[in-house]
Amino acid sequence: MLLTTLYIIGITAEAMTGALAAGKRHMDWFGVMLVASATAIGGGTVRDILLGHYPLGWVANPQYLVITCLAGLFTTIVAPQVVRFHKVFILLDSLGLIVFSIIGCRVAMDMNLSPLICIVAAVVTGVFGGLLRDLICRRPPMVLHKELYASVAFMAGGIYYAMMYFAVPETITTIVTLVVGFTVRVAAVQFGWRLPIFQFEEIVKAEPKELDSKS
Amino acid sequence: MLLTTLYIIGITAEAMTGALAAGKRHMDWFGVMLVASATAIGGGTVRDILLGHYPLGWVANPQYLVITCLAGLFTTIVAPQVVRFHKVFILLDSLGLIVFSIIGCRVAMDMNLSPLICIVAAVVTGVFGGLLRDLICRRPPMVLHKELYASVAFMAGGIYYAMMYFAVPETITTIVTLVVGFTVRVAAVQFGWRLPIFQFEEIVKAEPKELDSKS
Amino acid sequence: MLLTTLYIIGITAEAMTGALAAGKRHMDWFGVMLVASATAIGGGTVRDILLGHYPLGWVANPQYLVITCLAGLFTTIVAPQVVRFHKVFILLDSLGLIVFSIIGCRVAMDMNLSPLICIVAAVVTGVFGGLLRDLICRRPPMVLHKELYASVAFMAGGIYYAMMYFAVPETITTIVTLVVGFTVRVAAVQFGWRLPIFQFEEIVKAEPKELDSKS
Repeated sequence: MLLTTLYIIGITAEAMTGALAAGKRHMDWFGVMLVASATAIGGGTVRDILLGHYPLGWVANPQYLVITCLAGLFTTIVAPQVVRFHKVFILLDSLGLIVFSIIGCRVAMDMNLSPLICIVAAVVTGVFGGLLRDLICRRPPMVLHKELYASVAFMAGGIYYAMMYFAVPETITTIVTLVVGFTVRVAAVQFGWRLPIFQFEEIVKAEPKELDSKS
Repeated sequence: MLLTTLYIIGITAEAMTGALAAGKRHMDWFGVMLVASATAIGGGTVRDILLGHYPLGWVANPQYLVITCLAGLFTTIVAPQVVRFHKVFILLDSLGLIVFSIIGCRVAMDMNLSPLICIVAAVVTGVFGGLLRDLICRRPPMVLHKELYASVAFMAGGIYYAMMYFAVPETITTIVTLVVGFTVRVAAVQFGWRLPIFQFEEIVKAEPKELDSKS
Repeated sequence: MLLTTLYIIGITAEAMTGALAAGKRHMDWFGVMLVASATAIGGGTVRDILLGHYPLGWVANPQYLVITCLAGLFTTIVAPQVVRFHKVFILLDSLGLIVFSIIGCRVAMDMNLSPLICIVAAVVTGVFGGLLRDLICRRPPMVLHKELYASVAFMAGGIYYAMMYFAVPETITTIVTLVVGFTVRVAAVQFGWRLPIFQFEEIVKAEPKELDSKS
């Protein structure tokens, strides 16, 4: 119940970030709905396809698709206001990340998959929506460059899996995962925590054109 | 029978547009066949993966894959002529769009999915081939910017679903959907009908580099 | 046994090429692991999704995922040295290509699919890892531009399928495919063999902006 409510808040917030990205690329309303939906429910879709977990969530419950499309279109109206609530967005997005991770971990646990795959399912659910958004909008995938994001999903998946494994009641597990994950994510944004960057510049002259077409 | 004939015409035309896009990126013959096939049968493939509808069409009927690869290679020979038949292409592409939408809707109806998902299946089948082509060729996804395209697939799916639901004979349903959808699509190209564009320029200075790497 | 050993060598080498590509885009450690894994096991993943062959290899055997992530992270330490072993890499990558093709062909043969689809499965397994790497890192897909790569996978799949079909013992089939495929691939790199390029420049003025946004 709690998780469903938080999930709906999460996909709404994610859909709105997707719609804003589509607006920067001057997409039409269909593009807005597509990118909004891919951002919000793309992570769960990729997870379910990788795990062979059918039917997909939004195929079984099309109302989630309706929510993401409407949230996307609604964003086209309120976009100028949305920017002013930048901070609210980061909070909602952080909440969504943890909720997605918990749901991803649970789906894999219900399929009796190994611990590592359960945590990977959490990460995929949390991260691939934003990755799809950035691929469709042809911009650098933020989750691969910015503050702790995938790592927080990994941690949330790990906490959830471990507490469930040790038979902690589900409500307590969910709340602890939410509080810890949310706190770490918000702190990461606030203090700019990030994973080390791997920077590699090829200095050999072999095939410069193909290897580095942009520069 | 009618639908199969139109389907083969449709995938041939779509494969040729894919091959032309590959040619603009100076791809080799394998790239041409890959992009041609992704454009022509990518929409149906994505739909079947999303719906868990196995085996995929071209896995069960590999001859479709042969057609798209040959159409792609054939395009490398006749490309200069193809440009002169630009208008024929738009007509064949429009026909293909409606045929793909009808087939997508039918597949989902055969799986007893909800009305909305049937129409979404029509849109995915009609639209994702072009989307994959543009992603692989790294150019702005046309279906998200240009004249009514996804909307026509949506409408075609809706008409087909509604008429089948009210037990109109399938042949009549198919022909009505084809005629109406084709007419609207051609009119959209002719008169430049398009969905409203959502244009959003961020004016705040927060994180300009990550948020807008291209400009 | 032989094939498993070679497979592990192959995914390790592919993961390292993925990590280098991620380093050129200044990704963080998570990005490095993601791109490394997508490069190494993305081809098999796409093949299994297309064929509906569940569970995916790395879901059933998560240790492969551990290998690719560790190989990716290890690359961040040894990157400057790696460049010096450029030629070793090309050899390992060529070996990986043939091993992946053999495995892809075998999976499809075990599913009793048609000859063409078995060979397509070989090509997809061999080629899509590199394609995913280049899509995520937003650079021109090398396999569509460079020396014989997909063609070698196609040939390897064909040899393997034909020899198995004529009941040649599996060990001999595997070794012959490996030797022939590896030799052709290395020769292709050495002598710059490549498929003909299809180069197409539109000279009509229709829609220049949408059709060619980059130039």
